[in-house]
Amino acid sequence: MENTKRISIDIGGTNTVFGLVDGNGTIVERCAIKTQDYRTMAQYIGAIEENIVRFKTTCGNGGVLGIGIGAPGGNFYKGCIEAKAVNLPVKECIPLKQILERDLHLPVTVDNDANAAAYGEMVFGGAAGMRDIIMITLGTGVGSGIVIDGKLLHGYSGLAGELGHSTVFPGGRTCHCGRKGCLEAYASADGICNNFKELLEHQGKPLSPAQAETLTCKQIGELAASGDPTAAAAYDKAAYALGIALANAVNLSSPQAIFIAGGPARVGDILMKPLRKHFSEHLLFLYHGSVTLQQSALPDNDAALLGAAALCQCKK
Amino acid sequence: MENTKRISIDIGGTNTVFGLVDGNGTIVERCAIKTQDYRTMAQYIGAIEENIVRFKTTCGNGGVLGIGIGAPGGNFYKGCIEAKAVNLPVKECIPLKQILERDLHLPVTVDNDANAAAYGEMVFGGAAGMRDIIMITLGTGVGSGIVIDGKLLHGYSGLAGELGHSTVFPGGRTCHCGRKGCLEAYASADGICNNFKELLEHQGKPLSPAQAETLTCKQIGELAASGDPTAAAAYDKAAYALGIALANAVNLSSPQAIFIAGGPARVGDILMKPLRKHFSEHLLFLYHGSVTLQQSALPDNDAALLGAAALCQCKK
Repeated sequence: MENTKRISIDIGGTNTVFGLVDGNGTIVERCAIKTQDYRTMAQYIGAIEENIVRFKTTCGNGGVLGIGIGAPGGNFYKGCIEAKAVNLPVKECIPLKQILERDLHLPVTVDNDANAAAYGEMVFGGAAGMRDIIMITLGTGVGSGIVIDGKLLHGYSGLAGELGHSTVFPGGRTCHCGRKGCLEAYASADGICNNFKELLEHQGKPLSPAQAETLTCKQIGELAASGDPTAAAAYDKAAYALGIALANAVNLSSPQAIFIAGGPARVGDILMKPLRKHFSEHLLFLYHGSVTLQQSALPDNDAALLGAAALCQCKK
Repeated sequence: MENTKRISIDIGGTNTVFGLVDGNGTIVERCAIKTQDYRTMAQYIGAIEENIVRFKTTCGNGGVLGIGIGAPGGNFYKGCIEAKAVNLPVKECIPLKQILERDLHLPVTVDNDANAAAYGEMVFGGAAGMRDIIMITLGTGVGSGIVIDGKLLHGYSGLAGELGHSTVFPGGRTCHCGRKGCLEAYASADGICNNFKELLEHQGKPLSPAQAETLTCKQIGELAASGDPTAAAAYDKAAYALGIALANAVNLSSPQAIFIAGGPARVGDILMKPLRKHFSEHLLFLYHGSVTLQQSALPDNDAALLGAAALCQCKK
């Protein structure tokens, strides 16, 4: 199987990226199209199929294991993606699995991007040989993928794994979802920016509207790396919220390891050191020693393609 | 299989109860011994075996499907029970599965009491036909059992399902476990008593030490039923903590239903009405309509025996 290749597709709001991935997790070929460049859904799907057919030709007959597709709003049970979630110009669920399997005669697996990342960690990353993990993807939001006994957890609704919307501070900061005190409101890139702004306000040194407007999480990470205590405290607040939510998640599923991925995690110990502290302090004694907390071993730039490729091996 | 009987054993700190249970969940025979009456472990296990042999004889050859054992500290992976958890006079883990299978030639399944209750709900209760549920058992503590795709969730450590120790109010009331703000500190029988005492103190009407000493959760339930607003508020506080913890648990595992069992839940709507409200308010919009919240359908007095009996059908 190591020599059989997987075709992986990472659908985002800006780009739709294609990869041809071998069994060792090497991306041997890649290309991309602009998700927004197509006026009709048929044209968009046509462009997807064209790229797949090209990869398939490269591999020769019988050389492709399958197609894995990761997207925000990807639904494993239905095999479709929610067009809204990637700003596609239609409203309905796009039945990509059904269409591509019919047209291309290859097995297709669709899932959301965080689930794909979790399975990517299992197949190509730091979770090789493990059966029970939790994957956290920090970015615009806080995504999560849960693997139980070697299988991705989808639950009754198909939408299991939304740890970003766990209430961590009841009555706290308002989240994108409209509720209050969600993990995402503190530990996403936006959340870390808001932690930083709030801390500066408490210190009587609020940012100007122009500064506040252009502030990025990356800048806060750079400030923290250069020794700025307020920037470090903004990360500590994110780590506190995430530490509590993860210790609570361990109470439920008792994983062997938790992996942290995504832009805001690139700062390494600036996040991971306080995160380990807060996690450990909120972890029930029963689980001490049975669970590790670590950064994702997938290379950041390839994580989405490797995750989608891993889905080809996903057990139903 | 319906006519094949299960032998179920519910081991508690006071009594060890035996049941002979048919495939419809009728307990056709039962008896009990005092858990503390035995000076040595060998004597205690001897008494257990004596009762099993008697049930086995009642059923004739081939008439017993297996033995299911539920106990606080029951460990599914190891097949043993933690003697400490039921106040048995030894310190080690008692390998009940190994001993009983060797001596009695019947398959034995051991698990903790909350997991047994969850599986009991699946086999004999309100979750028949479901694949994904969460069971909450309210009592001295707050226990939980999680069923994923028809199987009990044990996780990497074997100790998955400790929702009672989820941090709901960071920095809040101290829990039995030594940490702060756990669900159990607000929603167990003790927690509800403490909610009530705290509310009375805030009203400037603290209980006398003698009253505080003898206060029970059952009394608070009776007061609430008779219209006492402070008693109702003590239950509302428990429901608020439980509603948050359960909405967070849905984010992780997306069950079809959540069942609530145990003494403090016997008050019915006094708990369930505010619980549904707080749960719904903290539930991510994605899950609205996909999960129900209800009282356990197992008869309270038989729940532990039926749960242990159900373990005989537990998929590995």
